[in-house]
Amino acid sequence: MEQTLLAPAGLKGVVVADTTTGDVRGSEGFYHYRQYSAVELARTRSFEDVCHLMLEGELPDPERSRAFAARLADAAGLPAGLEALLPAIARSGPDRASLARLRTAVSHLGAIEGFAPTWGADPEQVRADVLRLVGSVPTIQAALHRLRRGEQPLAPRPELGAAGSWLWMLSGREPEPAHRNAITAYLTSTVDHGFSASTFTARVVTSSGSDVASAVVGAIGTFAGPLHGGAPDRALDALDEIGTPDRARDWVRERVAAGDRIMGFGHAVYRTMDPRAAMLREIALELGGPLVDLAVQVEAEVVSALAELKPGRELHTNVEYYAGVVMERCGIPREMFTPTFATARIVGWGAHILEQTTSPRIFRPSARYTGPEAPAPVPVG
Amino acid sequence: MEQTLLAPAGLKGVVVADTTTGDVRGSEGFYHYRQYSAVELARTRSFEDVCHLMLEGELPDPERSRAFAARLADAAGLPAGLEALLPAIARSGPDRASLARLRTAVSHLGAIEGFAPTWGADPEQVRADVLRLVGSVPTIQAALHRLRRGEQPLAPRPELGAAGSWLWMLSGREPEPAHRNAITAYLTSTVDHGFSASTFTARVVTSSGSDVASAVVGAIGTFAGPLHGGAPDRALDALDEIGTPDRARDWVRERVAAGDRIMGFGHAVYRTMDPRAAMLREIALELGGPLVDLAVQVEAEVVSALAELKPGRELHTNVEYYAGVVMERCGIPREMFTPTFATARIVGWGAHILEQTTSPRIFRPSARYTGPEAPAPVPVG
Repeated sequence: MEQTLLAPAGLKGVVVADTTTGDVRGSEGFYHYRQYSAVELARTRSFEDVCHLMLEGELPDPERSRAFAARLADAAGLPAGLEALLPAIARSGPDRASLARLRTAVSHLGAIEGFAPTWGADPEQVRADVLRLVGSVPTIQAALHRLRRGEQPLAPRPELGAAGSWLWMLSGREPEPAHRNAITAYLTSTVDHGFSASTFTARVVTSSGSDVASAVVGAIGTFAGPLHGGAPDRALDALDEIGTPDRARDWVRERVAAGDRIMGFGHAVYRTMDPRAAMLREIALELGGPLVDLAVQVEAEVVSALAELKPGRELHTNVEYYAGVVMERCGIPREMFTPTFATARIVGWGAHILEQTTSPRIFRPSARYTGPEAPAPVPVG
Repeated sequence: MEQTLLAPAGLKGVVVADTTTGDVRGSEGFYHYRQYSAVELARTRSFEDVCHLMLEGELPDPERSRAFAARLADAAGLPAGLEALLPAIARSGPDRASLARLRTAVSHLGAIEGFAPTWGADPEQVRADVLRLVGSVPTIQAALHRLRRGEQPLAPRPELGAAGSWLWMLSGREPEPAHRNAITAYLTSTVDHGFSASTFTARVVTSSGSDVASAVVGAIGTFAGPLHGGAPDRALDALDEIGTPDRARDWVRERVAAGDRIMGFGHAVYRTMDPRAAMLREIALELGGPLVDLAVQVEAEVVSALAELKPGRELHTNVEYYAGVVMERCGIPREMFTPTFATARIVGWGAHILEQTTSPRIFRPSARYTGPEAPAPVPVG
């Protein structure tokens, strides 16, 4: 009998790796990228600089910042072999399958460009493959969105910054500076967040020495699951249903009393308000408007109802709630909320893929067989 | 501070789930599917019956066996929306990227057919999605192979059985009964093998409630990594290099003395001869021929050289070695060895996906932050 260790369900609390990418301190309501407060970075640095921090390990000086932004801009264009297939991919499947379509497109890009195994590869080549996907995923997602609506895709405009280019590619309208800043903060604050299931998937795939596209495609698949955080449209649907602030109290109490889960509240790790939600609430208040007023009032009702009706559960506002409010306020179509989140999170996946390649131990856990005693004689067919 | 548990690298020996799919007993050189010896199943039951065992939980009686084979046959056809894209997918990327092309095609099929989240889904719908992929993946792989060579894809012929249909779709020639039997035994014996990294990936993806195509696409990505077992072409390349039996001894001793790894020997779990290798050696000897004679002599030289030069390491023949010999002997092109393995292993992934949906706890492990102390003040950009 070999030595085995029985892990808690879902590996909760099990340390599966050492990391310098950052950490989430759930009880403190604090998270960091490398050694810096993520929320502070989101408020003060560009998305591209935070990409540099995550993928190169340090914040760039102004010269490196420009060089890195230029590399990302180069990576934003799509090869002809992918452009040719995007209309067919965009038309396929139901509306809800936007991440499935992204999964196909990224997989095809990786094949076209011959992404090589990470095992034994030059780390600079692995980093280049990560950058290729960080740069191209927004272009792919915006193109799929427009093609599905019968519109022509728009070329990225890197001079607007990542957030501005994203808003431009979705709408074809010149983005307002306040919207660019708000979406920059949102993207930057959601780049990474510990060993979420999608991030863990990227690391497990990488651990076999597979290529960067395989790891990102695997992560996208996990990210698409309804139990993975990051579907800010669900919280906003509730605000639509409530409609006006005077209806908030009754709506919330009925839902909570009926045992319904209210989207946008509670988090697997935070025992406090999600620091991303706190920052995005500030940004929402800066943007202002009736939706923001409604959101703030509903939040107060929900938090007080949850504290009263589910005491001790520590169900606070999470990132989904104000992410939806901010994106709606900046004109992002609701079906593009989760794809916007993916645009950011791919940076974190990339940082974890890079780190995983320095630890070439394949993830091969054990299981406990609980079926009938084996071997039993095989019956004749 | 939350309770944390420091896991060994790669989660080695860590029990991450209970399972009734089967088990691998490394020290005994034995593995089983459900409660039955896998090797005995491979020698006595059809591939379709073993699929039924893995996906429905029990071996079928003759009536159910026919009904299940008919369902698999129905699942082998491809939708027009996928057929239209296969030529472009087949042409993309380098030769080595066959699993990347499969990844794209499966992803697209899942999107086209609107595979829904497994979370909250009817288990029969999840099983139908698994069967869809088990049935269609051989057709997809054979079509990609032929299109890349400029040949027309061939329709599956389920009346030949899974192995016979596979041989037919690859070559367009009527398969010999001995080859059908040999490949049936190979496919059946490689359906599942514990929590390999690809199987674990399928379970992690599923744990977020994502769809079956996402889980299989993730598993394919991990499977493509060079550290994942299952590349029988590598072992055969060594036999080519050796050429004739009289050169075996010197070649092996030079390689081992130089510290080169010899493909096809040693296994992460088995401390004995891999039971799959033992069965496939029997089958190879039944098929006979110069390649088999060479393989048996080289095996003896390698095993004795490894025992002498690396004492105590227990490096025995693994499945890759005789899998390559058997596939070559049955006329499968070498670049289709790993795709043949994938054709079998998708059954195991499917069984694990189905089982994972009954345990809706998302995999979200922890990590230990080992970077500079945080938070540090963010420098101005």
